[in-house]
Amino acid sequence: MRIFGIDPGSDRTGYGCIESAGSRHRLVVCGSLAAPARATFPDKLMAIHAGLTALLARHRPECVAIEGIFHARNVRSALKLGHARGVALLAASEAQLPVVEYSPAEIKRAVVGYGRAEKHQVQEMIRLLLGLETPPSPHDVADALAIALCHAHASGGAAAIRIPRAVARPAVRSWRQYRPS
Amino acid sequence: MRIFGIDPGSDRTGYGCIESAGSRHRLVVCGSLAAPARATFPDKLMAIHAGLTALLARHRPECVAIEGIFHARNVRSALKLGHARGVALLAASEAQLPVVEYSPAEIKRAVVGYGRAEKHQVQEMIRLLLGLETPPSPHDVADALAIALCHAHASGGAAAIRIPRAVARPAVRSWRQYRPS
Repeated sequence: MRIFGIDPGSDRTGYGCIESAGSRHRLVVCGSLAAPARATFPDKLMAIHAGLTALLARHRPECVAIEGIFHARNVRSALKLGHARGVALLAASEAQLPVVEYSPAEIKRAVVGYGRAEKHQVQEMIRLLLGLETPPSPHDVADALAIALCHAHASGGAAAIRIPRAVARPAVRSWRQYRPS
Repeated sequence: MRIFGIDPGSDRTGYGCIESAGSRHRLVVCGSLAAPARATFPDKLMAIHAGLTALLARHRPECVAIEGIFHARNVRSALKLGHARGVALLAASEAQLPVVEYSPAEIKRAVVGYGRAEKHQVQEMIRLLLGLETPPSPHDVADALAIALCHAHASGGAAAIRIPRAVARPAVRSWRQYRPS
Protein backbone atom coordinates (compact mmCIF):
# COMPACT_ATOMS: atom_id res chain seq x y z
CA MET A 1 0.00 0.00 0.00
CA ARG A 2 1.31 3.44 -0.95
CA ILE A 3 0.44 6.23 1.52
CA PHE A 4 1.08 9.96 1.13
CA GLY A 5 1.39 11.91 4.41
CA ILE A 6 1.01 15.69 4.52
CA ASP A 7 1.89 18.15 7.30
CA PRO A 8 0.41 21.42 6.00
CA GLY A 9 1.62 24.92 6.87
CA SER A 10 1.38 28.23 5.03
CA ASP A 11 5.15 28.79 5.09
CA ARG A 12 6.26 25.15 4.72
CA THR A 13 4.29 22.02 3.95
CA GLY A 14 6.01 18.70 4.71
CA TYR A 15 5.19 15.57 2.72
CA GLY A 16 6.28 11.97 2.87
CA CYS A 17 5.26 9.03 0.71
CA ILE A 18 5.85 5.46 1.92
CA GLU A 19 5.11 1.97 0.65
CA SER A 20 3.98 -0.55 3.26
CA ALA A 21 3.56 -4.33 3.13
CA GLY A 22 2.66 -5.75 6.54
CA SER A 23 5.38 -4.65 8.95
CA ARG A 24 7.77 -3.58 6.19
CA HIS A 25 7.92 0.04 5.17
CA ARG A 26 9.90 1.77 2.45
CA LEU A 27 10.43 5.48 1.83
CA VAL A 28 9.30 6.53 -1.66
CA VAL A 29 9.88 10.27 -1.39
CA CYS A 30 9.82 13.00 1.24
CA GLY A 31 10.51 16.72 1.43
CA SER A 32 8.85 20.04 2.00
CA LEU A 33 7.23 22.68 -0.18
CA ALA A 34 8.03 26.31 0.56
CA ALA A 35 6.98 29.38 -1.40
CA PRO A 36 9.41 32.31 -1.67
CA ALA A 37 9.21 34.29 1.59
CA ARG A 38 8.15 37.45 -0.31
CA ALA A 39 5.27 35.75 -2.14
CA THR A 40 1.76 36.98 -1.34
CA PHE A 41 -0.37 34.71 0.83
CA PRO A 42 -2.56 33.56 -2.13
CA ASP A 43 0.61 32.78 -4.12
CA LYS A 44 1.97 30.72 -1.20
CA LEU A 45 -1.25 28.71 -1.21
CA MET A 46 -0.89 28.22 -4.97
CA ALA A 47 2.68 26.92 -4.50
CA ILE A 48 1.47 24.36 -1.91
CA HIS A 49 -1.45 23.24 -4.08
CA ALA A 50 0.56 23.01 -7.31
CA GLY A 51 3.40 21.17 -5.58
CA LEU A 52 1.12 18.61 -3.93
CA THR A 53 -0.89 18.11 -7.14
CA ALA A 54 2.33 17.33 -9.07
CA LEU A 55 3.62 14.97 -6.33
CA LEU A 56 0.32 13.05 -6.11
CA ALA A 57 0.24 12.65 -9.90
CA ARG A 58 3.84 11.44 -10.01
CA HIS A 59 3.82 9.03 -7.04
CA ARG A 60 0.22 7.78 -7.34
CA PRO A 61 -0.51 6.89 -3.69
CA GLU A 62 -3.68 5.00 -2.74
CA CYS A 63 -4.61 7.49 -0.03
CA VAL A 64 -3.62 10.71 1.70
CA ALA A 65 -3.05 10.85 5.47
CA ILE A 66 -3.20 14.17 7.32
CA GLU A 67 -3.28 15.33 10.91
CA GLY A 68 -6.82 16.02 12.08
CA ILE A 69 -6.99 19.41 13.74
CA PHE A 70 -9.18 19.72 16.76
CA HIS A 71 -7.33 22.55 18.41
CA ALA A 72 -4.79 25.28 17.62
CA ARG A 73 -2.77 27.70 19.71
CA ASN A 74 -5.14 30.56 18.93
CA VAL A 75 -7.67 31.84 16.38
CA ARG A 76 -4.98 33.55 14.28
CA SER A 77 -2.85 30.42 13.88
CA ALA A 78 -6.02 28.34 13.30
CA LEU A 79 -6.96 30.62 10.38
CA LYS A 80 -3.51 30.38 8.77
CA LEU A 81 -3.33 26.62 9.25
CA GLY A 82 -6.87 26.25 7.90
CA HIS A 83 -5.94 27.98 4.62
CA ALA A 84 -2.95 25.67 4.01
CA ARG A 85 -4.84 22.57 5.06
CA GLY A 86 -7.74 23.56 2.79
CA VAL A 87 -5.61 23.59 -0.37
CA ALA A 88 -3.93 20.31 0.71
CA LEU A 89 -7.32 18.59 1.08
CA LEU A 90 -8.35 20.09 -2.26
CA ALA A 91 -5.31 18.57 -4.00
CA ALA A 92 -6.19 15.15 -2.52
CA SER A 93 -9.84 15.46 -3.53
CA GLU A 94 -8.97 16.56 -7.09
CA ALA A 95 -6.70 13.49 -7.36
CA GLN A 96 -9.74 11.41 -6.30
CA LEU A 97 -7.86 10.05 -3.29
CA PRO A 98 -9.50 9.17 0.04
CA VAL A 99 -8.28 11.28 2.98
CA VAL A 100 -7.68 9.73 6.41
CA GLU A 101 -7.16 11.79 9.56
CA TYR A 102 -5.42 11.00 12.85
CA SER A 103 -5.00 13.01 16.03
CA PRO A 104 -1.46 13.97 17.16
CA ALA A 105 -1.73 11.46 20.05
CA GLU A 106 -2.84 8.63 17.72
CA ILE A 107 0.13 9.34 15.44
CA LYS A 108 2.66 9.26 18.29
CA ARG A 109 1.07 6.16 19.78
CA ALA A 110 1.23 4.35 16.43
CA VAL A 111 4.84 5.30 15.67
CA VAL A 112 6.56 5.43 19.06
CA GLY A 113 4.21 3.45 21.26
CA TYR A 114 2.76 6.15 23.46
CA GLY A 115 0.87 9.37 22.85
CA ARG A 116 3.13 11.84 24.59
CA ALA A 117 6.37 11.02 22.80
CA GLU A 118 8.92 13.79 22.17
CA LYS A 119 9.69 14.99 18.64
CA HIS A 120 13.18 13.42 18.61
CA GLN A 121 11.73 10.04 19.63
CA VAL A 122 9.30 10.17 16.70
CA GLN A 123 12.14 11.07 14.32
CA GLU A 124 14.33 8.23 15.59
CA MET A 125 11.52 5.68 15.18
CA ILE A 126 10.86 6.87 11.64
CA ARG A 127 14.57 6.42 10.89
CA LEU A 128 14.44 2.82 12.18
CA LEU A 129 11.13 1.88 10.54
CA LEU A 130 12.16 3.22 7.13
CA GLY A 131 15.82 2.11 7.39
CA LEU A 132 17.19 5.64 6.91
CA GLU A 133 20.77 6.63 7.73
CA THR A 134 19.73 9.79 9.58
CA PRO A 135 16.41 10.84 11.15
CA PRO A 136 14.22 12.82 8.73
CA SER A 137 14.31 16.58 9.24
CA PRO A 138 13.07 19.29 9.44
CA HIS A 139 10.16 18.47 11.70
CA ASP A 140 7.46 18.97 9.03
CA VAL A 141 8.99 16.19 6.91
CA ALA A 142 9.19 13.91 9.95
CA ASP A 143 5.59 14.73 10.88
CA ALA A 144 4.37 13.92 7.36
CA LEU A 145 6.15 10.54 7.43
CA ALA A 146 4.80 9.84 10.94
CA ILE A 147 1.23 10.38 9.71
CA ALA A 148 1.81 8.04 6.77
CA LEU A 149 3.29 5.36 9.09
CA CYS A 150 0.36 5.83 11.48
CA HIS A 151 -2.08 5.02 8.69
CA ALA A 152 0.03 2.01 7.61
CA HIS A 153 -0.29 0.79 11.20
CA ALA A 154 -4.00 1.51 11.51
CA SER A 155 -4.95 -0.10 8.20
CA GLY A 156 -2.53 -3.03 8.45
CA GLY A 157 -3.53 -4.12 11.94
CA ALA A 158 -1.95 -3.42 15.32
CA ALA A 159 1.07 -5.62 14.66
CA ALA A 160 2.06 -3.79 11.50
CA ILE A 161 4.57 -1.52 13.21
CA ARG A 162 6.91 -3.43 15.52
CA ILE A 163 8.32 -1.18 18.19
CA PRO A 164 11.77 -2.00 19.56
CA ARG A 165 11.13 -1.33 23.22
CA ALA A 166 14.39 0.40 24.09
CA VAL A 167 13.96 2.93 21.32
CA ALA A 168 10.25 3.35 21.89
CA ARG A 169 10.76 4.68 25.40
CA PRO A 170 14.14 6.43 25.47
CA ALA A 171 12.98 9.02 28.01
CA VAL A 172 12.32 6.28 30.55
CA ARG A 173 15.58 4.53 29.69
CA SER A 174 17.67 7.63 30.20
CA TRP A 175 15.88 8.40 33.46
CA ARG A 176 16.93 4.91 34.64
CA GLN A 177 20.50 5.50 33.55
CA TYR A 178 20.80 8.60 35.68
CA ARG A 179 19.02 7.19 38.70
CA PRO A 180 21.43 6.86 41.66
CA SER A 181 22.16 3.16 42.23
CA MET B 1 -13.96 48.14 -13.58
CA ARG B 2 -15.25 44.62 -12.99
CA ILE B 3 -14.96 43.37 -9.38
CA PHE B 4 -15.69 39.87 -8.06
CA GLY B 5 -16.64 39.71 -4.37
CA ILE B 6 -16.47 36.44 -2.41
CA ASP B 7 -17.94 35.55 0.99
CA PRO B 8 -16.39 32.12 1.70
CA GLY B 9 -17.89 29.41 3.88
CA SER B 10 -17.48 25.65 3.91
CA ASP B 11 -21.22 25.01 3.56
CA ARG B 12 -22.11 27.97 1.32
CA THR B 13 -19.88 30.46 -0.49
CA GLY B 14 -21.55 33.64 -1.70
CA TYR B 15 -20.28 35.50 -4.76
CA GLY B 16 -21.19 38.71 -6.53
CA CYS B 17 -19.69 40.31 -9.60
CA ILE B 18 -20.30 43.99 -10.36
CA GLU B 19 -19.22 46.50 -12.98
CA SER B 20 -18.45 49.99 -11.71
CA ALA B 21 -17.85 53.27 -13.54
CA GLY B 22 -17.53 56.20 -11.13
CA SER B 23 -20.68 56.25 -9.02
CA ARG B 24 -22.57 53.87 -11.31
CA HIS B 25 -22.69 50.19 -10.48
CA ARG B 26 -24.24 47.31 -12.38
CA LEU B 27 -24.82 43.74 -11.26
CA VAL B 28 -23.13 41.20 -13.55
CA VAL B 29 -23.92 38.01 -11.65
CA CYS B 30 -24.43 36.84 -8.09
CA GLY B 31 -25.31 33.65 -6.27
CA SER B 32 -23.93 31.05 -3.91
CA LEU B 33 -22.08 27.78 -4.27
CA ALA B 34 -23.14 24.89 -2.06
CA ALA B 35 -21.91 21.32 -2.12
CA PRO B 36 -24.36 18.48 -1.39
CA ALA B 37 -24.81 18.29 2.40
CA ARG B 38 -23.60 14.68 2.45
CA ALA B 39 -20.36 15.43 0.58
CA THR B 40 -17.09 14.91 2.47
CA PHE B 41 -15.30 18.03 3.66
CA PRO B 42 -12.57 17.74 0.95
CA ASP B 43 -15.30 17.34 -1.71
CA LYS B 44 -17.07 20.46 -0.40
CA LEU B 45 -13.80 22.38 -0.79
CA MET B 46 -13.47 21.03 -4.33
CA ALA B 47 -17.01 22.22 -5.17
CA ILE B 48 -16.17 25.74 -3.94
CA HIS B 49 -12.87 25.84 -5.80
CA ALA B 50 -14.25 24.41 -9.06
CA GLY B 51 -17.28 26.73 -8.94
CA LEU B 52 -15.22 29.87 -8.33
CA THR B 53 -12.65 28.89 -10.99
CA ALA B 54 -15.43 28.51 -13.58
CA LEU B 55 -17.08 31.82 -12.57
CA LEU B 56 -13.79 33.77 -12.70
CA ALA B 57 -13.03 32.33 -16.15
CA ARG B 58 -16.51 33.18 -17.45
CA HIS B 59 -16.89 36.70 -16.04
CA ARG B 60 -13.25 37.83 -16.26
CA PRO B 61 -13.12 40.37 -13.40
CA GLU B 62 -10.10 42.61 -12.90
CA CYS B 63 -9.77 41.75 -9.24
CA VAL B 64 -11.21 39.70 -6.38
CA ALA B 65 -12.43 41.34 -3.17
CA ILE B 66 -12.76 39.30 0.02
CA GLU B 67 -13.37 39.99 3.68
CA GLY B 68 -10.12 40.12 5.66
CA ILE B 69 -10.42 37.92 8.70
CA PHE B 70 -8.79 39.16 11.83
CA HIS B 71 -11.01 37.36 14.26
CA ALA B 72 -13.47 34.47 14.44
CA ARG B 73 -15.90 33.26 17.06
CA ASN B 74 -13.57 30.47 18.16
CA VAL B 75 -10.71 28.24 17.02
CA ARG B 76 -13.07 25.65 15.54
CA SER B 77 -14.95 28.10 13.33
CA ALA B 78 -11.65 29.79 12.39
CA LEU B 79 -10.32 26.44 11.14
CA LYS B 80 -13.42 25.74 9.02
CA LEU B 81 -13.52 29.27 7.61
CA GLY B 82 -9.78 29.09 6.90
CA HIS B 83 -10.21 25.99 4.72
CA ALA B 84 -12.94 27.60 2.58
CA ARG B 85 -11.11 30.92 2.35
CA GLY B 86 -7.91 29.08 1.36
CA VAL B 87 -9.46 27.48 -1.72
CA ALA B 88 -11.16 30.79 -2.64
CA LEU B 89 -7.81 32.64 -2.54
CA LEU B 90 -6.27 29.78 -4.51
CA ALA B 91 -8.89 30.16 -7.28
CA ALA B 92 -8.12 33.91 -7.47
CA SER B 93 -4.38 33.33 -7.56
CA GLU B 94 -4.65 30.64 -10.24
CA ALA B 95 -6.69 33.09 -12.35
CA GLN B 96 -3.81 35.58 -11.87
CA LEU B 97 -6.13 38.10 -10.25
CA PRO B 98 -5.08 40.52 -7.50
CA VAL B 99 -6.89 40.01 -4.19
CA VAL B 100 -8.01 42.97 -2.07
CA GLU B 101 -9.17 42.62 1.54
CA TYR B 102 -11.42 44.79 3.68
CA SER B 103 -12.47 44.53 7.30
CA PRO B 104 -16.19 44.06 8.13
CA ALA B 105 -16.34 47.65 9.47
CA GLU B 106 -14.73 49.06 6.31
CA ILE B 107 -17.26 47.23 4.17
CA LYS B 108 -20.25 48.53 6.13
CA ARG B 109 -18.81 52.05 6.23
CA ALA B 110 -18.29 52.04 2.45
CA VAL B 111 -21.74 50.69 1.60
CA VAL B 112 -24.05 52.10 4.28
CA GLY B 113 -22.01 54.99 5.67
CA TYR B 114 -21.11 53.71 9.09
CA GLY B 115 -19.27 50.68 10.41
CA ARG B 116 -21.91 49.22 12.68
CA ALA B 117 -24.78 48.95 10.19
CA GLU B 118 -27.26 46.11 10.51
CA LYS B 119 -27.47 43.34 7.92
CA HIS B 120 -30.81 44.54 6.53
CA GLN B 121 -29.44 48.07 6.05
CA VAL B 122 -26.53 46.68 4.02
CA GLN B 123 -28.95 44.64 1.89
CA GLU B 124 -31.21 47.65 1.24
CA MET B 125 -28.25 49.81 0.19
CA ILE B 126 -27.02 47.12 -2.21
CA ARG B 127 -30.51 46.99 -3.72
CA LEU B 128 -30.46 50.78 -4.28
CA LEU B 129 -26.88 50.97 -5.55
CA LEU B 130 -27.35 48.14 -8.05
CA GLY B 131 -30.93 49.08 -9.00
CA LEU B 132 -32.37 45.70 -8.00
CA GLU B 133 -36.07 45.03 -7.43
CA THR B 134 -35.52 43.18 -4.16
CA PRO B 135 -32.57 43.14 -1.73
CA PRO B 136 -30.09 40.35 -2.48
CA SER B 137 -30.41 37.28 -0.28
CA PRO B 138 -29.39 35.04 1.40
CA HIS B 139 -26.87 36.97 3.48
CA ASP B 140 -23.76 35.39 1.91
CA VAL B 141 -24.77 36.75 -1.52
CA ALA B 142 -25.41 40.20 -0.01
CA ASP B 143 -22.07 40.08 1.82
CA ALA B 144 -20.20 39.18 -1.38
CA LEU B 145 -21.83 42.11 -3.24
CA ALA B 146 -21.09 44.44 -0.31
CA ILE B 147 -17.38 43.55 -0.48
CA ALA B 148 -17.33 44.19 -4.24
CA LEU B 149 -19.08 47.58 -3.76
CA CYS B 150 -16.64 48.43 -0.95
CA HIS B 151 -13.71 47.94 -3.31
CA ALA B 152 -15.44 49.98 -6.04
CA HIS B 153 -15.74 52.75 -3.47
CA ALA B 154 -12.17 52.45 -2.19
CA SER B 155 -10.58 52.34 -5.64
CA GLY B 156 -12.85 54.92 -7.26
CA GLY B 157 -12.46 57.58 -4.58
CA ALA B 158 -14.62 58.52 -1.64
CA ALA B 159 -17.36 59.96 -3.85
CA ALA B 160 -17.88 56.81 -5.86
CA ILE B 161 -20.73 55.54 -3.73
CA ARG B 162 -23.33 58.19 -3.03
CA ILE B 163 -25.27 57.41 0.10
CA PRO B 164 -28.87 58.63 0.29
CA ARG B 165 -28.90 59.85 3.87
CA ALA B 166 -32.33 58.57 4.88
CA VAL B 167 -31.51 55.05 3.77
CA ALA B 168 -27.98 55.15 5.08
CA ARG B 169 -29.05 55.64 8.67
CA PRO B 170 -32.50 54.06 9.04
CA ALA B 171 -31.81 53.00 12.63
CA VAL B 172 -31.37 56.60 13.68
CA ARG B 173 -34.39 57.68 11.64
CA SER B 174 -36.67 55.10 13.19
CA TRP B 175 -35.40 56.02 16.64
CA ARG B 176 -36.50 59.59 15.88
CA GLN B 177 -39.87 58.42 14.70
CA TYR B 178 -40.60 56.66 17.96
CA ARG B 179 -39.26 59.44 20.17
CA PRO B 180 -42.03 61.07 22.20
CA SER B 181 -42.66 64.58 20.77
